[in-house]
Order: sequence, then structure tokens, then C-alpha cells
Amino acid sequence: MYSIGIDIGGSKIAAGVIGEDLNLIRKKSLPFPHTGNPLDSIETIRTLIRGLISECNLKEEDAACIGLAVPGSIDYDRGVVINAYNLDYHDFPLCQYIGESFPGIKVYVENDANAAALAEYYCGAFRGCSSGLLITIGTGIGGGLMLDGKLFVGGKKNGFEFGHAVLLFGGEPCTCGQRGCIESYCSAAALVREGRKAASEHHESAMYVNAQGDLTKINAKLVMDSAREGDQVASEVYQRFTDYLGATACTAIALFDPEIIAFGGGVSNDGEFLLAPIREYARKYAFFKNHAKIVTAEMKNDAGIVGAAMLYLQR
Amino acid sequence: MYSIGIDIGGSKIAAGVIGEDLNLIRKKSLPFPHTGNPLDSIETIRTLIRGLISECNLKEEDAACIGLAVPGSIDYDRGVVINAYNLDYHDFPLCQYIGESFPGIKVYVENDANAAALAEYYCGAFRGCSSGLLITIGTGIGGGLMLDGKLFVGGKKNGFEFGHAVLLFGGEPCTCGQRGCIESYCSAAALVREGRKAASEHHESAMYVNAQGDLTKINAKLVMDSAREGDQVASEVYQRFTDYLGATACTAIALFDPEIIAFGGGVSNDGEFLLAPIREYARKYAFFKNHAKIVTAEMKNDAGIVGAAMLYLQR
Repeated sequence: MYSIGIDIGGSKIAAGVIGEDLNLIRKKSLPFPHTGNPLDSIETIRTLIRGLISECNLKEEDAACIGLAVPGSIDYDRGVVINAYNLDYHDFPLCQYIGESFPGIKVYVENDANAAALAEYYCGAFRGCSSGLLITIGTGIGGGLMLDGKLFVGGKKNGFEFGHAVLLFGGEPCTCGQRGCIESYCSAAALVREGRKAASEHHESAMYVNAQGDLTKINAKLVMDSAREGDQVASEVYQRFTDYLGATACTAIALFDPEIIAFGGGVSNDGEFLLAPIREYARKYAFFKNHAKIVTAEMKNDAGIVGAAMLYLQR
Repeated sequence: MYSIGIDIGGSKIAAGVIGEDLNLIRKKSLPFPHTGNPLDSIETIRTLIRGLISECNLKEEDAACIGLAVPGSIDYDRGVVINAYNLDYHDFPLCQYIGESFPGIKVYVENDANAAALAEYYCGAFRGCSSGLLITIGTGIGGGLMLDGKLFVGGKKNGFEFGHAVLLFGGEPCTCGQRGCIESYCSAAALVREGRKAASEHHESAMYVNAQGDLTKINAKLVMDSAREGDQVASEVYQRFTDYLGATACTAIALFDPEIIAFGGGVSNDGEFLLAPIREYARKYAFFKNHAKIVTAEMKNDAGIVGAAMLYLQR
């Protein structure tokens, strides 16, 4: 038995075969075809699946599922992508389209942040736990929550939008239309915004100097590198950023009380430089003293593929 | 078959018998004995239970359970109250003490906000739903969450502390030690604090005039009455208060996506005066458009008794 996971992103479509022992046997990817016709991406996905099946000498009847992860909202009952803006999928019957080409295989679709949490649960940081929260720090904030061994997708099955809980009422505008969402303070984009703002007011900052005065050159890595090297302005920005993340962890502890909270995304690659201040914040302020362990995510770039391939274990 | 529910509060202990059709057959209460020895309250509880059993001509062997609701944190596996500060219960083996006197009856203990949510689920506003969030606005904020027909008490079973999610990072100090918790903006105490602050700065306000300049006389009812009668200062305070509650509802929608959100506590007795602005906020800002219905709680003062008596259906 094997299963196939497909991670459909705005830049590329990544596909992989996962074996019975949950290891990634083979993967391949193709660019997402931004042709204006989303059906072209269906052809790309089919090509990837056929390629993997053929290259690994697999039989269709041995497949446990084809799982699809998309950056968007899902109608679980119908297997339809309601909206995935980066892919131009709107009310898009993704499962049906893929199922038509592989009639003997079950096809499931899931939000990519949820799929990543599933990957941590079966193969990564959540192993041995029945509850865990994955917070992925990217341009936005992705959240995936396991409760009692099950992916939580909301009481009404609308989804789990961790990044759009309010963290600072009345604060920075968020892409969702509200103000002060977790996403508008804890995302890499928020760190960059605050870094640029501070640099524009402090030309002596290493951020400003290293960017040669071009604020658009200041990215998350430059803010973090400058903070790590002791630049005071960058350090203050970074301290505030980790405080926001610490308060976010405290909110998660009060509401979900998970066994583990894992941080993913590029910003987390540095491990302790991110985790230590979040842990310190939680040690001081978390409502429960015996609260969740706070760790980095383990699955990195393959999280979407692996989590999607695991969907048959949840449905 | 019947069950007994006991709601142990800092001022009184209320007890009731619930019949098989989930209606409250008889109730009675006694003051909580603040003698310095918490064992005295055990005697009061035993007296109430014996009284109900005798007055209703019940047999101990027909009892489904004795359920106890306490304003505190619970060790579910051991049936122990970890901390209930108003009752001076600390690591207090409540179930064991009650069970010793009624050896044939199962005894369960639950947090009172959770018990209230259970009452809404079986007998009140949540009927017909499998998920619902009860937000009780009192001196603090009580939260009780039903997910998939089960009371949610945290991944690690530490509990569900809805009032201690962060709403305004860096804001007003909260009793828990953190700043800006939901409780520090959405509780009746917070409404009073903001009302008094505004009245102290605006002696022309109806709040100040009606309190005859004595700020300590300004309570939640006076702020709300003054706002309802068009006092501008009180209206602004109340508008901010309902905005905080609206943002809190939006956070709940993004994270739990429940079928229903019910507001309880004295502040909610006014129905639409509280609900209409919260609904309007959620209509504008909730992440999911087909979000939870927002209603008032139905169970009022009997919620603790009824929910506690229902515990046998959950354990």
C-alpha cells in the first residue's frame, strides 16, 4: 500500500509517494501553470501522479488515497475548493477532476496548513501526542490543530483560521478586513513592516546601513540577522515580535491547552533564537503552568506532501 | 432515574434534582459556610443532597450521578479541585468526600462555566447543535465550549480558559498576571472600570450625576442604563465594550467556528441591546461569512445545577 500527496502552491505543484511505513519514497514537482485556466493545473497534477505511479512501478489498486493540499478554504463534504486565491480556484471541484482520471483511488482535499499539522502528527514533532498546534510563520500565519488525534476543521467545518484571532484590538489592518489579527503582528510580513518602519526612523541601525538606505531591501532575515548581531533597533523590533508570538502561544494554551506547539516557516529555521523568548514569555504568562512544550516544526518543505498523503487516515 | 446537580458558589451552594426528561424537579440552597475549614462545606452539600432525596422520595440506587460544579480548576482523572479560590478549595478531593456519604452513586466534578455550557447543550440555547460556545459575562469571563457533542476541557485536560486569550496585547492588567486578556476588556468589571474612568473625566455624564459624584456607585447596570437613555459618555463606553465583545466573537469564530455563540451573565439579560452591536461587528469582520448564530444564554441561574446534573451523559 502507498498513498500520494500533492501540495498545490502558487509557484509550484509538488507531489510525492508515501509508503506504508510513512516515509517519502519519491517526489517530483512542476511549476503551477498560471494560464488563466485553472483546468490546466489539473492536467499538471495528473501528469505528476501518472509519473510517480509509473516511475515507482505502482498499481493504482494499491493506493490508499490521493491527497491534495491547497492554500485555501475547503467544502469537505463536496471535496470542493471554495477559494484559493493564489491558484485562482473558486468553487472548484478539485476532487472530482482528479478522481475522473483515477477512478479506483479515493481523492481527498485539505487546507495546506492543516495538511502540515497532519504531517507533524504522523511523522514529525507531534508524534506521541494526541493534541498539537502547528503555527507556520510565513507571509501570513498558517495554523493547524490536532485535537484528540483528529484534525480540527471547525464546528461548522468552515476551517481553522488561527491567524485571524484578534491579538491587538484596533491595531494594524489585516488582509481579512479586521484589525490587529495574529497574522498582522506575527507573520514574517509583519516583522518586515516593523523592521522597515524602525529603520526609516533610525538611519544608524544596521538594518538601514546593510540595506544601503533602500528600505525595500529589508527582509525578515536582515531584521533577524541584525538583531542577532546586537543592533539595538533591530533587537527591539525582534523582541516585540517574539513578545507577540509569546502572547499568541499563551492564547493557544488558554484555549486549546495542546500537548505541543510547533513553530514552522522560514523564521523558525533558527531554532532557539526564536523559541527561547517565546518559551520565556509562556513561562511568565501562560495560564496553565504545566503547559504545552514549545518546539520547531520538523517536516519543513515536505509537510504539505506528507500531510496530504496521510488524509486517508483521517477520513 | 434522576440525577443531582450541585452548584457550589462563594456565596451559596445550590442543589437540584433533574428528572429523566431533563427538567428541574426541585431545588434548594444554603449559604456557603466560610468557616475557614472547607470540610464544613462538605457537610452542607451532604445536607442538601439528603434533603432533596428525602423530600422527593428518591432511592439512592436510581441516581445516575451527583454532579458538582465549582468555580475553579479540576483534575478530572482524580476528581479533585486543584484550585477554587472563592471556596478556599486547594487540591481538594471533593468527589471522594461526597462519594463516601453516597457510596452507591457516581460523583463527578466540573468547572462551573463548563457545566453551564453543558446545560445549554442539553436543555438550552445549544439544543440541536453539536458545537457551541457559552461566554458568561460576570465579574470575570466564563467560557464553556462544546465540540462535536463533547465538553472541551483542553488537550492536556487543564481546562478551557476562554477569558484569558489575549484581546489587546499590552493592555489592561488581568488578574491572571498577563495584560489585555479578554476578561480584562469584556467582563462586567471591565465595563464598570471604563464607566468610572469616563465619568471621572466627564462630570456632565448621566453616570456621574446619577451616582451623585460617588464613582463607587457606578455599576454595570448604571453604565448600560445611561447608555440606553442616550448619555453620550456612557454610550461611547458601551460602544467600545460591545466592540470588544464583537472582536471576541470574531476570534471564537476564526478558532472554533461553532454553530452557536451564547452570551450569559447579568449584562446579557437585556438581549438585543447587547447582541445587536455584537452581531453587527461579526457581520462586518468575522472571517467566515456563514458564521455562528449569536444569541443569549437560556439557562440563567439554574445553569450550574442543571449542567452538573448532566455530567453522567459526558463521562
